[in-house]
Parts: sequence; structure tokens; C-alpha cells
Amino acid sequence: MEGYVQFLALLVSALLVGFISVVFSLVWVFQYRGGLSWDGSAQEFNWHPILIITGFVFIQGIAIIVYRLPWTWKCSKLLMKFIHAGLNTIAMILAIVSVVSAFDFHNAGNIPNMYSLHSWIGLAAIIGYAIQLFSGLAVFLLPFAPMPIRAALMPIHVFSGLTIFATVIATALMGITEKLLFSLQNPSYSSSPPEAIFVNCLGLLLVIFGALILWMASRPHWKRPPEDSVKILRPIGGTREGKEAESSVTDGSNANKSELKINSEAARKQNFRLDEAGQRSTM
Amino acid sequence: MEGYVQFLALLVSALLVGFISVVFSLVWVFQYRGGLSWDGSAQEFNWHPILIITGFVFIQGIAIIVYRLPWTWKCSKLLMKFIHAGLNTIAMILAIVSVVSAFDFHNAGNIPNMYSLHSWIGLAAIIGYAIQLFSGLAVFLLPFAPMPIRAALMPIHVFSGLTIFATVIATALMGITEKLLFSLQNPSYSSSPPEAIFVNCLGLLLVIFGALILWMASRPHWKRPPEDSVKILRPIGGTREGKEAESSVTDGSNANKSELKINSEAARKQNFRLDEAGQRSTM
Repeated sequence: MEGYVQFLALLVSALLVGFISVVFSLVWVFQYRGGLSWDGSAQEFNWHPILIITGFVFIQGIAIIVYRLPWTWKCSKLLMKFIHAGLNTIAMILAIVSVVSAFDFHNAGNIPNMYSLHSWIGLAAIIGYAIQLFSGLAVFLLPFAPMPIRAALMPIHVFSGLTIFATVIATALMGITEKLLFSLQNPSYSSSPPEAIFVNCLGLLLVIFGALILWMASRPHWKRPPEDSVKILRPIGGTREGKEAESSVTDGSNANKSELKINSEAARKQNFRLDEAGQRSTM
Repeated sequence: MEGYVQFLALLVSALLVGFISVVFSLVWVFQYRGGLSWDGSAQEFNWHPILIITGFVFIQGIAIIVYRLPWTWKCSKLLMKFIHAGLNTIAMILAIVSVVSAFDFHNAGNIPNMYSLHSWIGLAAIIGYAIQLFSGLAVFLLPFAPMPIRAALMPIHVFSGLTIFATVIATALMGITEKLLFSLQNPSYSSSPPEAIFVNCLGLLLVIFGALILWMASRPHWKRPPEDSVKILRPIGGTREGKEAESSVTDGSNANKSELKINSEAARKQNFRLDEAGQRSTM
């Protein structure tokens, strides 16, 4: 894998930033907002930021890059599809529970639902995510969709996934803004009490996490090699296909490079061709 | 150009949605918020949403996709770089004036500056945009940077540009949320008066505009063909290079296709190789 150390460093950074974001959401709720309950009170609402940040941001982010972990490339594509779909399903369930907690809190306190831009875009993101999940299952996981359909829908699936992920983070930032304005009254948000500074930092962490995931997900040379080309190329690393691919991205001094390197480079090049024709069904 | 009609439809949609967003910001300010002035009042603040949506969202969005307009491919690369840099400079100036109007309004009313997540992420976006603009000028417009530096920085320039653009839209959504919560008191935001519905729709339009721009900017087959390959390939459309490139994305029935089509397809394929090696300096 080209840039393996860089990939690892980014992965560790993303996991760290994502994990710290979840911890920050817990500290926010337990340190400043009275903890958790499920009784229609503000403590029930507190599930909302925790579950959104844990599920809809952190777990969704991991689901996006799970195909790119190079140590999973020896696992079957089907297994990885199940992991990708499974993580997204967990994220979806947590997001739904999270929304229920917000609605419960509103209903118990006679606060209207669905009036804010946060709620409009958040609901659109959840509906989009559900469509993405079910269409992904139907087209890419179940064996019925013919290759041309998979090929045509793959670029849309990838783009929609990344756009929904970015939209979820934007919605979380709006939610943080709303919550701080509502709950910080004395001292107010504008007087920058410790909670305001702390939760603003949580918002910054979410943006950094999003940028790290999107960078990893959009580097073409970190794509999982497609199974067909791995199967074809592994036993014949020195084929014309493999050598041509390799020579186009190096200076020609390939003598000392291992067959594995040639195989993975060739597979990577192969990805480009398949992607362009929409023939792959991974990120 | 592959998918020319689809590109045109998306471009018209993006221009329309962007233009309607600017009109919506004007209607918001003049219909509901008392118009514009420059005297430290709330009317001075009103420049903030108008200039952000016009400059930092709409003009920046156009600047991002300006290389992709196929009728500009006959213009020199240098001219297109000037247009790209010029539009981004205009966006930067409008964003700075917009921030000054918000600070002036705060200072005149003894409202603290820079306490909200909106202001933190907004300032980070403006600083990032300034770095992007000056590094872009220094590396890609001025003739001093050697090719390896340009090649290494191009993927970062592209990713940063798109990430800043998405961050600006997220910041605008936070700003809308703040402004509606502050200014809608009787009736309140939560009672969904016409202004709330109208400005929520503006927020949705910004998300749609962002998604359209990011889709157009991230389709590899809509990239501007690099000048070198156009020069090389135009007179020799039937070369091995051109034919190989074409055959890899079609069913082989190329007999009736024009030389221009073969040239542009070959140029597009060439883009992939150059991009992978980081050899191009356009979006």
C-alpha cells in the first residue's frame, strides 16, 4: 500500500479525534447537563448529542473508511460489505433513538417539534441515510442487481454517503449552537463560560474528524483492490498488465520491489479503470 | 465531453439554486430585517448574510467549478487560473467585509465577539481560505514553484478547497440558526412564523447548492483536459494512446465516433494518470 505510514497516522488521528469527541459529549452531559435518564426531562434529551456523536458521526465515519483498512483486504468482499452495512445499521439505530429522545423531551415540555433548520436538515439527513442504507443493501449486498445497475449506482452511493456524512456534521454543529443558546442563560453563551468553550471545542473536533475521514475516503491510491484483479494479478505479478501499471507511476527502478508491491500497485491501477467504468462496489 | 447534457443540467441547476439563495438573502434582509445601512445598527449586520451567501458561498462555488466548463477548455490554462484566483479573491474580499459588518454591529451594541461556535469555525474557514488563496497564488499561478512541489500540493489544494467550501456552508447554517433564534422573539422561532419557514428554506437551498457543486467538482470525467495532452493528442487522435484510452471505457464500437471524441476521451484518461502522479494543477 502506497503511503501506508501516512494512512496509519491519519487513521490513528481520526480514531483519536472521534473517540475524544465521544468523551467530550459524555463530559458535557454528565459534567454540565445533569446526566442521563428516560423520563421526558432534559436528561432524556441528553441522549441526543451522545448518540448522534457516537453513532451518526463516529461509527458512520468508521463505516465509511472500513474498506480502506489494508489488513482487511485479505478478507472477502462480502464480509467487508456486511461490516460496512452493519456499522451503518448501528449508526442508523442510534440516530433514530437519539431523535426519539429529542421528540420525547419536546413533547413532555410542550416544545414544538421540527421548527428549526437543525431539525429540517437533520430529518433530511436521516431520511437520506435510510434510503442510502436500504438501496445499498438491495443493490450491493443482495445478489440480485445486475452489474450495470451496480456500476451506474456506485458513484452516486459513494457521493451520497460522503455528502450525508458531511451534512450530519453540519447538523450537529447547528444542534450544538441551539443547545448552548438555550441552556446557557446565566452566565449566557455570549459571556463564554467554561461549558461554552468546552462544547465549542467539541464542535471543532467534529469538523476535524469529518475532514480526516473525507481525506482518507477520497484518496484513490488507498482504495481496496478489487477482488477480481487481486485474484488475477496475485499469481502473475509480472504480467504486462502489472508491469504497465507499475511503470506509469514510478521512475522505472522497480528491480528491488517485491511482487506484493507490484501486485498491489497493479491492483490499484486496475481500480482506476474499473472505477471509471463504475465497475467497483466499494468505497 | 462525456455526459455533456447532464453537466449542463447540473450547472443550470447550481446557478439557479445559488442565484435564488442570493435573492432569498436579499428578501430576508429587506422584507423582514429592515434593509441595509452602515452605522453599527442591526441593518449593518444585515450585510453579513448577504455578502457571505453572495461571495463566500455562491461565488466560491462558481470558482470551484470554473475549470470544468467545457467551453473554457479552448482558453489558456493561465487565463483560467486568473479567473479561478480572481473569483476566489472577490469571495475573500466580500467575506472580510461581511465579517467587519458583524464585528461593527457587535462592538456598537457591546455584544461580545468570537464567543460562538459559528464565529470560531467561521474564522477558521476564513483563515484557511486566505492560506488557500495565497498558497494557490504562490504555487500554481506564479511561475516559480517547481513541478514536484505543484504535484505534491495539488491534491491538498483541491481537498482543502472543497472542505473549506463545505465548512463555509455549515457555518452559514449555524449563522442562520443563531440569527433566527436571536431576532425572532414575538412570535418566536419555535412558533414557525413566515420568516422562520422562509429562512429555513434558504438553509436548505445552501445545502443543495453545496451538494451540486461538490458533485460537479468530484466527477473525474468532467475534468478539464490538461494542456499538454490536448496539444499532444489533438493532431494524432488515432494513436495507440488515444485508442487504448477510448477502448477501456466503451464497448469497442468506436467506428462512428469523431476524432474530437477520441481526443477528449484520451485527454480524460490522461488526466487520471497525471492526477495520480499529482502532475496537474487544475481542479
